[in-house]
Amino acid sequence: MRRLNGSAGADEKDWVAAEEPLEIHVEGQSIAIVMRTPGEDHELAAGFLVTEGLLHGAGDLAGIAHRPHCLVSGLTASAEPEAVPETIPPAEVPQSTSAPGPSEGNVINVTLKHPETMDLKKLTRHVFTSSSCGICSKSSIAAVRQQFPPIEDDFQVPAHLLFRLTTALSAAQESFQRTGGLHACALFDLTGRLLVLREDVGRHNALDKLVGWAFLRDQLPLRRHILLLSGRTSFEMMQKALAAGIPLVAAISAPSSLAVEFARDSGQTLVGFLRGERMNVYAGGGRIGQD
Amino acid sequence: MRRLNGSAGADEKDWVAAEEPLEIHVEGQSIAIVMRTPGEDHELAAGFLVTEGLLHGAGDLAGIAHRPHCLVSGLTASAEPEAVPETIPPAEVPQSTSAPGPSEGNVINVTLKHPETMDLKKLTRHVFTSSSCGICSKSSIAAVRQQFPPIEDDFQVPAHLLFRLTTALSAAQESFQRTGGLHACALFDLTGRLLVLREDVGRHNALDKLVGWAFLRDQLPLRRHILLLSGRTSFEMMQKALAAGIPLVAAISAPSSLAVEFARDSGQTLVGFLRGERMNVYAGGGRIGQD
Repeated sequence: MRRLNGSAGADEKDWVAAEEPLEIHVEGQSIAIVMRTPGEDHELAAGFLVTEGLLHGAGDLAGIAHRPHCLVSGLTASAEPEAVPETIPPAEVPQSTSAPGPSEGNVINVTLKHPETMDLKKLTRHVFTSSSCGICSKSSIAAVRQQFPPIEDDFQVPAHLLFRLTTALSAAQESFQRTGGLHACALFDLTGRLLVLREDVGRHNALDKLVGWAFLRDQLPLRRHILLLSGRTSFEMMQKALAAGIPLVAAISAPSSLAVEFARDSGQTLVGFLRGERMNVYAGGGRIGQD
Repeated sequence: MRRLNGSAGADEKDWVAAEEPLEIHVEGQSIAIVMRTPGEDHELAAGFLVTEGLLHGAGDLAGIAHRPHCLVSGLTASAEPEAVPETIPPAEVPQSTSAPGPSEGNVINVTLKHPETMDLKKLTRHVFTSSSCGICSKSSIAAVRQQFPPIEDDFQVPAHLLFRLTTALSAAQESFQRTGGLHACALFDLTGRLLVLREDVGRHNALDKLVGWAFLRDQLPLRRHILLLSGRTSFEMMQKALAAGIPLVAAISAPSSLAVEFARDSGQTLVGFLRGERMNVYAGGGRIGQD
């Protein structure tokens, strides 16, 4: 990589966030490919299936294993002599599972205790309705809500607890600071203690990894937890949080209109622009107490 | 929305970025749903099909039209009395087409001059290879490269021209500054003149809209152009740029490892962290002249 600063230039070594495809199989059948940062692939596969509504409890799972290494040999390598920047694994994380490393390969297979009960048709995306009128926000939300019930858990955390979370996230998010290229999500308990942090080039993957982490420890639903997102909040992020039962979602950046609608319909608290001593509360403000 | 600042709170009106599903049909057949910011739906549909390799020139297209409005009535509205924040349309853009507004609906149909030649199987994502070894970076890149040739166009722009682009983007990107929730991409010519800016809650959509804009004006491939991205650069963004023939991609934020590999393999120039008078050049540095 060549770094230019005004008119000065220098060749330097650089860290970039790793991105590789992961093909997720269920019972040997390929169901999805995601572009992800390698690492925690077991969690990613499990979390993906949970947030798609295909896995419900740890009891549904028989096993998760990478398939044999890719052995492509007929493909021509890059003709350009430059070396690809080194990539770094996600940061070490408190209470992390022993995640498989990047060398494990890019195909992972999930086996089920009762494969006959799995409805793979659900994977046609929640928003995909076959109603003749097409699709709209209301039908998108309704389609998800049919599958995941709204959250009614009642608790209150003081605003100053939320203000502290971003500091904890920054401190834990070492690899973000090095590459600038990873999305992060972090799970906290109601005292503000960081339970797990997951990072990925794709923010959906980061959240799926976090949900998979909880699933593999049989900790779903996450009814007394706070989810912190490093970026923006879309419809799909709120849907994944609901699938994991998370009542309170806070983000450093902005929500979309559909994320706000979704949060209100599903009983979730949604906070945006959580920065320093400020935040915007878009839904479910009853869970946040003012000091 | 309730804004909290330390221990003070106030109910305020807020702008959030609009997000709605769009179902893209080809010849009446549903092929994809994207979660997008309404507006420029014709461009989005066309650009999506171009970057998926299904449309090649304006001559392939017979028409693009929204399907009738959604008439869902049986769905229950939100029970919570809070009003959803107002959403705003994307900013006015130089030389914009007369894009359809948000009220046009969420289903759009593309008709073709020669529908019999369209291979819908290509829509199974480029990275999806059926090779028995599974998938890896090399096969992902090779799959895309089979469809879109590498770029050999030779030109050089001075570094100071690139430094000026971010200022032009910020000036044009009004709605980003209001909501903080939109990704932007902008197309410039080799003199640094802004040709078009597109924004969306999804960065892939923003780029698809930009490519669709060029397609609908029969300006593809964009061989003498510079693409500026407001965020990060992933494999898929580079693939979409290649599909449009764009030789130089610059981004405010970081690239992924696969984006860098892809750029080197496809003859593209890739710049990251373009901020102020600094940038990192990850690939194709020959197109950037030092002052």
